[in-house]
Amino acid sequence: MHRAVVALEGHIIDSLALPRVWDMIMDLGGNFDVEEFRVGKRKNEQSFVRLSVEAPDEALLEEILTAIQQFGATPIDEVEADLEAVTQEGVFPQAFYSTSNQPTSVRHGGKWREVENIEMDCGIAVADGRAFCLPVDEARVGQDIVVGYQGIRVRPLERARDRELFGFMQSQVSAEKPKKLIIGEIAKAIRQIRADGGSVLFVGGPAVIHTGAGRYLSALIRGGFVQVLFAGNALAVHDVESALFGTALGVNVESGLAIEHGHEHHMRAINRVRAAGGLRQMVETGQLTGGVMKSAIDHGVDFVLAGSVRDDGPLPDVITDMVEAQRRMRASLHGVRMAIMLSTMLHSIATGNMLPAGVRTVCVDINPAVVTKLADRGSWQSIGLVTDVESFLRELALVIETGAHG
Amino acid sequence: MHRAVVALEGHIIDSLALPRVWDMIMDLGGNFDVEEFRVGKRKNEQSFVRLSVEAPDEALLEEILTAIQQFGATPIDEVEADLEAVTQEGVFPQAFYSTSNQPTSVRHGGKWREVENIEMDCGIAVADGRAFCLPVDEARVGQDIVVGYQGIRVRPLERARDRELFGFMQSQVSAEKPKKLIIGEIAKAIRQIRADGGSVLFVGGPAVIHTGAGRYLSALIRGGFVQVLFAGNALAVHDVESALFGTALGVNVESGLAIEHGHEHHMRAINRVRAAGGLRQMVETGQLTGGVMKSAIDHGVDFVLAGSVRDDGPLPDVITDMVEAQRRMRASLHGVRMAIMLSTMLHSIATGNMLPAGVRTVCVDINPAVVTKLADRGSWQSIGLVTDVESFLRELALVIETGAHG
Amino acid sequence: MHRAVVALEGHIIDSLALPRVWDMIMDLGGNFDVEEFRVGKRKNEQSFVRLSVEAPDEALLEEILTAIQQFGATPIDEVEADLEAVTQEGVFPQAFYSTSNQPTSVRHGGKWREVENIEMDCGIAVADGRAFCLPVDEARVGQDIVVGYQGIRVRPLERARDRELFGFMQSQVSAEKPKKLIIGEIAKAIRQIRADGGSVLFVGGPAVIHTGAGRYLSALIRGGFVQVLFAGNALAVHDVESALFGTALGVNVESGLAIEHGHEHHMRAINRVRAAGGLRQMVETGQLTGGVMKSAIDHGVDFVLAGSVRDDGPLPDVITDMVEAQRRMRASLHGVRMAIMLSTMLHSIATGNMLPAGVRTVCVDINPAVVTKLADRGSWQSIGLVTDVESFLRELALVIETGAHG
Amino acid sequence: MHRAVVALEGHIIDSLALPRVWDMIMDLGGNFDVEEFRVGKRKNEQSFVRLSVEAPDEALLEEILTAIQQFGATPIDEVEADLEAVTQEGVFPQAFYSTSNQPTSVRHGGKWREVENIEMDCGIAVADGRAFCLPVDEARVGQDIVVGYQGIRVRPLERARDRELFGFMQSQVSAEKPKKLIIGEIAKAIRQIRADGGSVLFVGGPAVIHTGAGRYLSALIRGGFVQVLFAGNALAVHDVESALFGTALGVNVESGLAIEHGHEHHMRAINRVRAAGGLRQMVETGQLTGGVMKSAIDHGVDFVLAGSVRDDGPLPDVITDMVEAQRRMRASLHGVRMAIMLSTMLHSIATGNMLPAGVRTVCVDINPAVVTKLADRGSWQSIGLVTDVESFLRELALVIETGAHG
Repeated sequence: MHRAVVALEGHIIDSLALPRVWDMIMDLGGNFDVEEFRVGKRKNEQSFVRLSVEAPDEALLEEILTAIQQFGATPIDEVEADLEAVTQEGVFPQAFYSTSNQPTSVRHGGKWREVENIEMDCGIAVADGRAFCLPVDEARVGQDIVVGYQGIRVRPLERARDRELFGFMQSQVSAEKPKKLIIGEIAKAIRQIRADGGSVLFVGGPAVIHTGAGRYLSALIRGGFVQVLFAGNALAVHDVESALFGTALGVNVESGLAIEHGHEHHMRAINRVRAAGGLRQMVETGQLTGGVMKSAIDHGVDFVLAGSVRDDGPLPDVITDMVEAQRRMRASLHGVRMAIMLSTMLHSIATGNMLPAGVRTVCVDINPAVVTKLADRGSWQSIGLVTDVESFLRELALVIETGAHG
Repeated sequence: MHRAVVALEGHIIDSLALPRVWDMIMDLGGNFDVEEFRVGKRKNEQSFVRLSVEAPDEALLEEILTAIQQFGATPIDEVEADLEAVTQEGVFPQAFYSTSNQPTSVRHGGKWREVENIEMDCGIAVADGRAFCLPVDEARVGQDIVVGYQGIRVRPLERARDRELFGFMQSQVSAEKPKKLIIGEIAKAIRQIRADGGSVLFVGGPAVIHTGAGRYLSALIRGGFVQVLFAGNALAVHDVESALFGTALGVNVESGLAIEHGHEHHMRAINRVRAAGGLRQMVETGQLTGGVMKSAIDHGVDFVLAGSVRDDGPLPDVITDMVEAQRRMRASLHGVRMAIMLSTMLHSIATGNMLPAGVRTVCVDINPAVVTKLADRGSWQSIGLVTDVESFLRELALVIETGAHG
Repeated sequence: MHRAVVALEGHIIDSLALPRVWDMIMDLGGNFDVEEFRVGKRKNEQSFVRLSVEAPDEALLEEILTAIQQFGATPIDEVEADLEAVTQEGVFPQAFYSTSNQPTSVRHGGKWREVENIEMDCGIAVADGRAFCLPVDEARVGQDIVVGYQGIRVRPLERARDRELFGFMQSQVSAEKPKKLIIGEIAKAIRQIRADGGSVLFVGGPAVIHTGAGRYLSALIRGGFVQVLFAGNALAVHDVESALFGTALGVNVESGLAIEHGHEHHMRAINRVRAAGGLRQMVETGQLTGGVMKSAIDHGVDFVLAGSVRDDGPLPDVITDMVEAQRRMRASLHGVRMAIMLSTMLHSIATGNMLPAGVRTVCVDINPAVVTKLADRGSWQSIGLVTDVESFLRELALVIETGAHG
Repeated sequence: MHRAVVALEGHIIDSLALPRVWDMIMDLGGNFDVEEFRVGKRKNEQSFVRLSVEAPDEALLEEILTAIQQFGATPIDEVEADLEAVTQEGVFPQAFYSTSNQPTSVRHGGKWREVENIEMDCGIAVADGRAFCLPVDEARVGQDIVVGYQGIRVRPLERARDRELFGFMQSQVSAEKPKKLIIGEIAKAIRQIRADGGSVLFVGGPAVIHTGAGRYLSALIRGGFVQVLFAGNALAVHDVESALFGTALGVNVESGLAIEHGHEHHMRAINRVRAAGGLRQMVETGQLTGGVMKSAIDHGVDFVLAGSVRDDGPLPDVITDMVEAQRRMRASLHGVRMAIMLSTMLHSIATGNMLPAGVRTVCVDINPAVVTKLADRGSWQSIGLVTDVESFLRELALVIETGAHG
C-alpha cells in the first residue's frame, strides 16, 4: 500500500469537512487510519486530525490527495509545489493544477504564498515570489505554472459561528418563504460594506427594465449603493427605449400593456444610440435624460456591457469580443465584496465563475431552477431568492433608504 | 348532404367567434354556405351572419351543430329542447347536454329560459318553467334533463370594446411584465364591486401564510374586501400555528428561518384546535388572538375549508367529505363577482370549475404552468399573474386602502 | 447549568449525525463537553461518543434533548417513557411526543419497544406491551400516549456504505442529467423487491394518462410489478375516457390533438361508469376493455382512489371522505417497500406523509419544484427525477421486461 | 379626418387577419368603413375586403397603416417606397422601416420586389433593382434604405388548410400531452426536406451532452439529417470531455453520478484542444475519436460555435466576436428549411431572430417558460415541446431511422 499523511485543522467537524474527507477517501477506493484526533469540545475551539491515507497504487493515492485537498486536507510534509513552464501560447502544461474558488496557498521558495485573484477553473502562475490565478487564455510561453498536487493548501471558508445571515440561511429561499427579513439583512450588509469602503456589484438582466424595476435600481445607484454594474446589450437597449418611448420591447413599462407596433421602438432606440456614438454621448447631448444607464454614467458606476450572439445592434458601448469582455469584467472585480445577480443566468454564471468564494452573492430569479444553479457555489456565502425581481428591488430600495435614515 | 341553418349575431368578428365557427365546421369535415352577411362597419355596430351548414351524415351534422354552439351559432328554427327523465340516482340520461360556463338558454314551453347557476360540466334540469344547472351527483330519479343539441342557445361573453382591464389584458401576465398598474386596476374593480353590493371571493393556499402574507389578507378582510374565503386544512393550520408560535411548519413567518424542532408546532397547533372544538371556539375562548382565520370569523366572512387526502389532523372545521364540500362551496358562490385565487392549484381549479364565465378571476402563482392552467378559462374575464403571492397581497392591501382614502 | 448525558453510536460521523447534533446544541443556545469519543478508524467500524449537554434552564435543556434525539442522541439513563391518557376523543395529551418517520423505540416496562407502523406527525400509543403509531384523529379516550422526550430512541437510517443506488444518488436528479442508468437501477430494485415477496406502490396523477403513458403502467401491472395503486378520480376518469373514446379531457392520447367538442367525452365517461355502478362492474359487463384501471382490476392490484374537491362526478369507486381515504391508504401500505410517485403532488405528499423513512421512494415530475418538495424526506432513501412521466414509464417498462428475460 | 384605402386578400378570416386589423385600427384610435367585402364561401375560396381607414391626424393614420401592414393590409394605391441614403456607418436613416420576419415586398421602379433574406428587426436596402434585408450594423454610407410605410407589402403566412402538423398543432405542447405522434411528424418532415434537397439546422445547448443524448445527435448526423449545427463553447467542450473522460463537467454521462474531483476534466479537455490547435486537428491527429463534434466534422456539417461571456477557455474553434458570429450564422442559413432548437435559450433566440417566418422551427426544452418564449414567433410554423431533451432525441433518432427503412 502507498501511504501519505495529511492534516486537517479548524472547525472541521461542524463545517462537515472531516466527514467529507473520510467519505471521499473511501469512495475513491482508498482507506485511512486516524493517527491523532483532538476534538474541539466547545463552541469556539478548533479541532485537529492527522490521517494516514493509503491506496493500492501511487496514481490513486495522488488522485485521493488532490480530491481531499479541496476540503483543507494538506500533506503534512511541507514540500514545494512543482512548477512547469508554458511552452505554447494560451496552453497550460498538461498536469496543471486547476483552481477552486477557495482561498489557496502554494509552497514556493520555502514559504506559503497566497494565490492572488483566486478564481475557479484557472491555473496558478508563480513569478517573482508571487502566486496568482491565470486564465488559460492568458498563459504566455515561459510562465511557470503549478502542476501536480503537492505544496498546495486550500482553506475552505468556514461557516460563521454566530447567527450571521450569509451563514445561517439555507442557500436557497423558496417562493414559499417570507423574504422581508432577508432583504433587510442584505440591505444591512450592503450598507456595512459601503461604510467599510468596499464595493457592491449588480448584475442585471433585461427583466429589471421590463418589470418596471429600473427606477429602483436607479435609486440604489443614486444612493451610492452600486459601484459596479454588469449587464448585456438588452438591459441597456430596453433602458434607453424606456427612457425615450416609455416602453421595453414595445411593452409599456408602467402598465404592462403592449403598444401596437411598439416593437419597432426597440430598433429605433438602438439606431438613435448608434447615431449619437454611444450612451455617454446620449447623456452629454441631452438625448438621454433618465433611466438606469444615465444614473450609472452620472454617478461614475464602473459598468461593463458584455455582448451576446442574440444582440440587436448592438449599442456602441457593448463589448462584442468575449475574451475582451471577460478581461474587462475581471478588472472591475477588485474591491467587490458583494454581488447581487438579478434575473440573468448568462451574466450571473459568467460573474460567478470569476468571483472568489469569499464574495457574498445574492441571486434573484423567479425561476427556481436558475436560482438553484447559481446559488450553489460551494460556499456559505451565497443566497438565492425565488421571487419577482421587481418586488425584490422595490423592497431593497425602500429598506436601504429607510435604514440610512433610521 | 344533410343541412341545417344557423345564425350568429353580435361582435362575432372581433370576438373571433365567426372565424372559429368556420374553422370548426371545416375541421370536423363539414362545409358551409354564407347565406347572409351584414358586417358592422363601425366600432359599436354588431354583425349578423346566416350560414347553411352541411355534412355527409346526420350524426356528423349533429356533432358540428353541438360544437359550434359554444361560439353562439344557434339553429335558426326555434325548436324546443329535448328532455329525458333521470331513471337512476346520480346518473344522467346518456345523451345529456354537457354545459359550458357561458350564459346559456334553453327553449322550453315556447320560450327561451336562462339556465340558472350556469357551471361547466353539468347537466341542465328543467322544472316548473325554470332551467338550472345540475351536477351529475345531484340527479334524482324523475328529473327532466336536456338531451341532444336542439333548443339550446349559448351567448359567449364578448370582450369589452373600451379599454377595460379585464378585456385588454393578455390572459397571462408573465414574471417579466410590470404589475403595478394591473394590481391597481384589480383594487379598483374590487372596490367597485363592493360599492355595488357584490361579493369578492378569495381562494388561498398555505403559501399565503408561509410567505408572511397573512397580515395583508387579514387587512383586506378587516377592510371589508373579502366576503367569501375558500381554503384547505393547511392554510388554517399554518395560520393558527403562526398565531400561537410565530411559525408555519416550523419556519418563522417573519424571518424565514427554520426553528430547530419547530416542525412539531404544526401538530401541537392542530391538537390545540381539536381540543378546543374548532376555530370559532378558539376565538371565543381567547386562545386564538390573531391571524387570517380570526379576522374571517370576526368579520363574518363565509369560509369553507375543504379537506384533502394530505391533511394532518384535520381541524374540526374542515369538511372532510368532498361531495359535501363542493355543495357548501356552490352555496357560497351566489353574489360573487370576482374571485382572487392565490397559490393553490387544487382549490383554484375546484372553484374555477364552479364559476360562470362572467365572474372575473385573478389567479396569482409563482409557477407559470399553474397560471396558464388556471387563467385559460375561455373567457375575457380571467387574468393570471406570475408573481410572488406575498408581493401581490402586500401591494393589493396597500393600494386598496390608499384608494379608499384617496 | 442544567446537564444531561447522551450517547450516539454508529456511523455518526460520515452520516453527519454527530456534527449536526453539535450544531443543533449550540444553535439552540446550549453547550456540550465531549466525555468520550471512540472514532471508527476504518470503513466498517462504528464510532461512539458520549456528550454532556448543558443549558441555562431545564426548559431549554429539554428542548435540546428533544431536538437532538432525531439524530439518534439518546439520554444515557434508561428511564421509562412518560405516558398520559387521552381524555377527549381525537385529541392527544398536550405534551404528546410527535413522531418522525425514522425507526423509533420507546422504553416501557424496562424494555425498548419498537414503534409499529412508524409515520411522521403522529402520536405513540402504548398498550399490552406494544407501542404503535397513532394519527390524532384515531385517539380514543383512555389510550396511553407517550409524552415528553424521555425514554424515546430514534435510530436514523444510515447511508449504505457500498455504492448502492439509493444511497449514492443525489436526492434530486435534474433535467440536465442522464437517467438511463438510474431507471435501470430502479428496475433492478423493483425486481429484487418482488423476488423477496415485497410490494411496490405506484402513485399516479392524471398526466400518466394524458401523456399516453397509461399503456406502460398497464404493462407494469400485467408484469406483476405493481401491488398497490394510489390515485384520484381524475386518473381513473381519464383512463376510462381514453378506453372508451381514445381521448383524455378531449385530447387524443395518441396524437395529442384536441378533438373539437371532445371535452364532453369526459362527462360522458363519468356518467357511463356511474350508470354501471363502478369500474369493476364496467369490466365485468365488458364495457371497459382496456386501460390502467382494467389492468389493475384484472391483476388484483389493491387500488385506492381518493377524492378531492376538484373532482367531477366522481366515480362510484372514489372514496369521498378524506379521513376514510387516509385509513384505506394506510391499510394498504403493509409490505410496501418501494413507492413510485408519478406527476401528482397531492397524492404523493399524502402518501409520503404515511411512509416510514425506510421505504424507498422515487418521485417523477417535470416540475423541479415538485420534485424538490417530494424528494426531500430526510432520508437516504428518496430519489427525485425531473423528467417527462411518459419517458420515464416507457423506459422503465422496457428495461424491467428486458431485465426479466435477460 | 384623414383617410386611406387598404385592401386585404386571402384566407383573411380564418387566419384571423381581418378581425385583428379591425381591432388594431380601433385600439389605436382610428375608425374604418367596409367598402367592399367578398367572403369566401367555401373551404378553398379566398376572401377580399377593401377598407377605408380614417384617423384624426396624419401621424396617427400613418401609425395605423404601419401597424396593420403586418397582417397584410396594403394601401391600395401602388405608390413607390420612399428611400433615404445612409449618412453614417452602421446607422439607418431615422425613419427606416423595421422589418418583420414575414414575406415582404417593396415597390420600386414600378415593380414589387421581394425582400431577400427577410429577417426581423432589420432595415431594407434597395440597390440594382434588388431589395434585401440589412442588419443595422452592416449599413454603409450611401446605401439606399426604405423609410416610412408606403410601397411596402407584407404577406403573412397562412395556416395550411389541410391537417398538416405545423399548421394544426397548438404552438406549444405541454408536458401533459403525448409526444409520440408529433415526433413522428417531425421525423417525416425532416426526411421530406432532405428528399427535396433542403437543409436542417440543429441548435444545441450543453444539456444535449449532459443528459447523454449526444449519441442520438451523432446518429442523426451520421444519418445525414443535420446540415447545419449552431452551438456554443460549452456543448463542444462537454462533448470533448465526454469523449476523452466519459464525463461532462465531471458527471458521468452514462450514470449521472458525479466523479469526485471530476470537475477538472472540464479544464483538461479545454487545454487539450487548445494544445492541438482546434477540434479538426484533434480529429485529424486521432486524439478525438467520438462524440457529436467528431461526427459533425466527419460528415461535413457546417457548424458555427458562437462564444459567450461565460465561456471557459474557450476552444480555438469558438468565434469570440459576436458580430462576426452573427455574420457566420446568417451565412449558414441559406437553404435551411427546418430548425430544431434543443435546450438553449441563448442560441435559440439568436437563431430565431435570423430566421424568416417560413422556416419551420421546433423548440424543445424542459422549462415551459423557455418554450413559450421561443415558440411564439407569430407564425403557424413553430412548435414548442416541453420535454426532456434526451427523450426527444432518443425518440427522434429511433423514429427517423425506422422510417428510413420502413
